[in-house]
Amino acid sequence: MHMDPHPFDTAIRLAPAGENAYSGATSPAYANMVGPFGGITCAVLLNAVLVHPQRQGEPVSLTVNFAAPIADGSFGIEARPVRTNRSTQHWVMQLAQQGAAVATASAVFAVRRETWSAAEAEAPRDMPAPSTLPRMPATGRPAWVRCYDFRFMEGELAGSFDGREQAHARSRLWVRDEPPRPLDFASLAALCDSFFPRIFLRRRAFVPVGTVSLTTFFHADSALLAGQSERHVVGTARAMSYRNGYFDQSAEVWSDAGQLLASSHQVVYYRE
Amino acid sequence: MHMDPHPFDTAIRLAPAGENAYSGATSPAYANMVGPFGGITCAVLLNAVLVHPQRQGEPVSLTVNFAAPIADGSFGIEARPVRTNRSTQHWVMQLAQQGAAVATASAVFAVRRETWSAAEAEAPRDMPAPSTLPRMPATGRPAWVRCYDFRFMEGELAGSFDGREQAHARSRLWVRDEPPRPLDFASLAALCDSFFPRIFLRRRAFVPVGTVSLTTFFHADSALLAGQSERHVVGTARAMSYRNGYFDQSAEVWSDAGQLLASSHQVVYYRE
Repeated sequence: MHMDPHPFDTAIRLAPAGENAYSGATSPAYANMVGPFGGITCAVLLNAVLVHPQRQGEPVSLTVNFAAPIADGSFGIEARPVRTNRSTQHWVMQLAQQGAAVATASAVFAVRRETWSAAEAEAPRDMPAPSTLPRMPATGRPAWVRCYDFRFMEGELAGSFDGREQAHARSRLWVRDEPPRPLDFASLAALCDSFFPRIFLRRRAFVPVGTVSLTTFFHADSALLAGQSERHVVGTARAMSYRNGYFDQSAEVWSDAGQLLASSHQVVYYRE
Repeated sequence: MHMDPHPFDTAIRLAPAGENAYSGATSPAYANMVGPFGGITCAVLLNAVLVHPQRQGEPVSLTVNFAAPIADGSFGIEARPVRTNRSTQHWVMQLAQQGAAVATASAVFAVRRETWSAAEAEAPRDMPAPSTLPRMPATGRPAWVRCYDFRFMEGELAGSFDGREQAHARSRLWVRDEPPRPLDFASLAALCDSFFPRIFLRRRAFVPVGTVSLTTFFHADSALLAGQSERHVVGTARAMSYRNGYFDQSAEVWSDAGQLLASSHQVVYYRE
């Protein structure tokens, strides 16, 4: 039996194109209003390190700076190991189209050892089972929204914008890839950008926005991700300040057993 | 009358060394246990953009990846404008010693316009005046600690480590440069790394640590910073998860009028 690859794997697929160089292409399944969903760009930049023959260890942090709109079509990625230490490895990446940088990125990878460990933040409590919450409709939304199964407990993106400003923009939800796909570092990197711009919730209005910089810390190792498999994870998202064209947004992703898998922080441009 | 420069300005001083290139040197005043205080490295990397003739606008985000220990002595910084748009500018930087990268960095700068703005997070309440709180002693601590005036309301670094694990590692404090110096983007970048490794508070024990990646978002523009001048700012810091060699740490810096000036997120290596 032939199985088509999952749309996520198609979207982050890279072909070798020389030393430290890869080529890829945007994927209609992950299209946003203009260009691709930012999360899929994070995932493909991380994937350039994940598939690199010199890669050691697993991701600890990933920063992506979105320098210009990404056009639909092909792109090149350069992924260069800057420094390899005994247990950590530092990478810089760049995504280019027509010879111009459209995104820059960096990542730290590490070989983890078992140490004293402790949780300090607590996973959201009182989350009803995902099956008891309705799936957020994707109708009228950009294509990438259909690539996730969103089940909101709090802070759903309003179906229509009435311009009634809200006191906060906090969300709590269950989310997984749609169709289901076992969680890995690349899909977790993408998922960390799936929480919708907080300003849409706060203002209940559409304003032009664009992430300029996004950093994700990976608290999970591959064993923890494998245990989560394709079941829904818990996501939380919030903002702290909207000021003169830029707001911040932080998100956490928790396993369904309450372990922190990733935390993510971005700064987003907005107009008006 | 001759006035010596402030030690901070000495520490971040750069000399032009070719196109996109600068040279600097570590400063004994900001020495840490091994090499320089991470915050001063962030500040000097940001300063390479601030003094660059092609720089447009003010910093919105800064990411620094610490790739290897920085040796005391001279270093070179390359700061390269990767993309200049109408209102944003993307930079990549690298700090090298003896030809090897010891830190990589990136920054987004922007020309801000006045827009709809709103605060969502609240500054800590009930902070007594800084003058009513004792200054944290710097005796027996690395040199850089004497470059700050720390007045803790909660979560002071213990004077001696008794190994009694605490339930959390949250801090609230007043802090400013010592001697006083008007706040600017470079000093704010440094200050964001001044909150001590959370694991020292949580475990009340010394363990070898090192920041591997630090991202700071600047919510303030230069006018807001100028208004703060050299008075104490409010700092808050906390962690979410310590797991198999890495923990995260987030901090906020607020003006004494309760406005968010910067938020900062780092991932820190620890041993044992």
